[in-house]
Amino acid sequence: MQPPKTLYLDGNKSTVEILDQRLLPHTIAYEPVSDKHQVWDAIKELKVRGAPAIGVAAALGLYVHMKNFVAQNQCLDHAAFTQEFESAKAYLSTARPTAVNLDWALNKMAVSFSANKYKPVPEIILALRQAAEKIKSDDTDICHRIGTHGAALLKPGMGILTHCNAGALAATKYGTALAPIYIAHEHGINLRVYADETRPVLQGARLTAFELHQAGVDITLICDNMAATVMSKGLVDIIFVGCDRVAANGDVANKIGTYGVALLAKNFKIPFYVCAPFSTIDVNTKTGAEIVIEERDQAEITDLWYNQPMAPRGVKVFNPSFDITLASYITGFITENGILHPPF
Amino acid sequence: MQPPKTLYLDGNKSTVEILDQRLLPHTIAYEPVSDKHQVWDAIKELKVRGAPAIGVAAALGLYVHMKNFVAQNQCLDHAAFTQEFESAKAYLSTARPTAVNLDWALNKMAVSFSANKYKPVPEIILALRQAAEKIKSDDTDICHRIGTHGAALLKPGMGILTHCNAGALAATKYGTALAPIYIAHEHGINLRVYADETRPVLQGARLTAFELHQAGVDITLICDNMAATVMSKGLVDIIFVGCDRVAANGDVANKIGTYGVALLAKNFKIPFYVCAPFSTIDVNTKTGAEIVIEERDQAEITDLWYNQPMAPRGVKVFNPSFDITLASYITGFITENGILHPPF
Repeated sequence: MQPPKTLYLDGNKSTVEILDQRLLPHTIAYEPVSDKHQVWDAIKELKVRGAPAIGVAAALGLYVHMKNFVAQNQCLDHAAFTQEFESAKAYLSTARPTAVNLDWALNKMAVSFSANKYKPVPEIILALRQAAEKIKSDDTDICHRIGTHGAALLKPGMGILTHCNAGALAATKYGTALAPIYIAHEHGINLRVYADETRPVLQGARLTAFELHQAGVDITLICDNMAATVMSKGLVDIIFVGCDRVAANGDVANKIGTYGVALLAKNFKIPFYVCAPFSTIDVNTKTGAEIVIEERDQAEITDLWYNQPMAPRGVKVFNPSFDITLASYITGFITENGILHPPF
Repeated sequence: MQPPKTLYLDGNKSTVEILDQRLLPHTIAYEPVSDKHQVWDAIKELKVRGAPAIGVAAALGLYVHMKNFVAQNQCLDHAAFTQEFESAKAYLSTARPTAVNLDWALNKMAVSFSANKYKPVPEIILALRQAAEKIKSDDTDICHRIGTHGAALLKPGMGILTHCNAGALAATKYGTALAPIYIAHEHGINLRVYADETRPVLQGARLTAFELHQAGVDITLICDNMAATVMSKGLVDIIFVGCDRVAANGDVANKIGTYGVALLAKNFKIPFYVCAPFSTIDVNTKTGAEIVIEERDQAEITDLWYNQPMAPRGVKVFNPSFDITLASYITGFITENGILHPPF
């Protein structure tokens, strides 16, 4: 059994159907998006999340927005089309500040646009669609290759800890951190996986446990603060996490809590691997200190207790969405091009 | 402003009114308990929690149970009374396995029983009430002394991290880990406190943030997995936690997640103090490896998402309630007798 698709172009190629991951694991529902505002909202509101999936959503979203913009405005004028493309691209890049894949995918779309800008508008739209679909199929291919490189580190019976969700639901298929597990599982290798639930939005509980459970992988859910206990009991042989951005020196921005897991892994001498497409390495960012960390809505922490407040009204809250894991705590980077070591 | 009382004997001295802490912070409601089954349930179901408060609840609970047993059965027979006392004491000690204060308080009650066992039954009951009330007033006194010793470590503007709730709500007043903060606050010393929310039952969010916010202390709530980030930013100068049991070598059983905080503190060279009454030191337990760790209901992890499942049905869950922090990660133990260092 496979997890549901993260996102896909519908039959008439003018809408992106995005799985609303906020509703998982109890409801599988797709949100149709067909303009830049809906795409921005889907990314901002975490209907689609995970660095690779955000890139694909932005690319497909930018394409359907331009197609529908032309249809609605009967616009075949190059100047207006170009202006709207630039404007929509800039707007979409503001949906989430931390994920480098967002800008990476939008820039890929801009390259396609530039290469085709003297063609008639319908041909530009077709080129944009092909560029977006290529980003999507490349993602599946890259994740498969990450999985193959990572699976080479795994032996039957090994225990693997992962944080957040860098699985099929964070990409188009396989994901990054979960790709080695899926590839090993396809080869009949039995593994024990521990998933940190990953507060505040619980991607580990709702997404990682969901997709691995559906795939028949032996998965055990723990709270984030139980990772030290599981490691101390000798249950974890290796750690795989994804990432949102890698600085040139190897510092990694990933879901809040990753840094703590890396520090614990170092203490217990457990190998800690970051799984990521090569595109996640941002050589223009020297170190993690330069990466802007998004702070999210305080209600994510204060308001998820049976519809009752779970913290006193008015209390101060600190809700960073990501943290920076220093390169010195990372054993290696598993990419589609093999296992790498910084600096890049 | 003070937090609401944790528990108290009602006017006719035959019921213990226990604040149902599961409903905090949104509802302040007291549960009247008057027999051993209700006391056991209140402790087991976490209506009352925190090592000192559990001890006081068990002592007062054993007293009201015996008083009401005599009244209901019109029992003035020493043999039946003794049998019921022994039976109720043994039963109450099974409510939670980890907290040493539970047995400690019940054994104090047994000492009082033994010292008065040849007296008429009504006099034994009075002696049991006095013993239970002494345990309660001693707790307030001990916590005040812990607070005074701990406050000597604090300077204006310092940042303090705490995990779970070892505050006024975990005891009769002041608490243990929060006692230094309350004492410093009473002396007008401004502090910044960070509270780990403490999954799965969120004692940090619902109780620590609640009681410190009510007391006017500068409190910021974070998720457990944000502790490394807060420490890495230099915001934390000292860490105070409570504990449920201290082994003779200094290993500490406390709320799950404490060990991880201690490991992070060591990495960032932040002093890590365990605040506890001397009675929490169990010299009969050589090391933490001998301490039985309670595993709790999996639904605590899987079922708190807006009344929707937050993990897939059927997924495996590991839900240990406590962990063992090795003595080597603990800077010192703040007790009513001063700051101590193991072995004991």
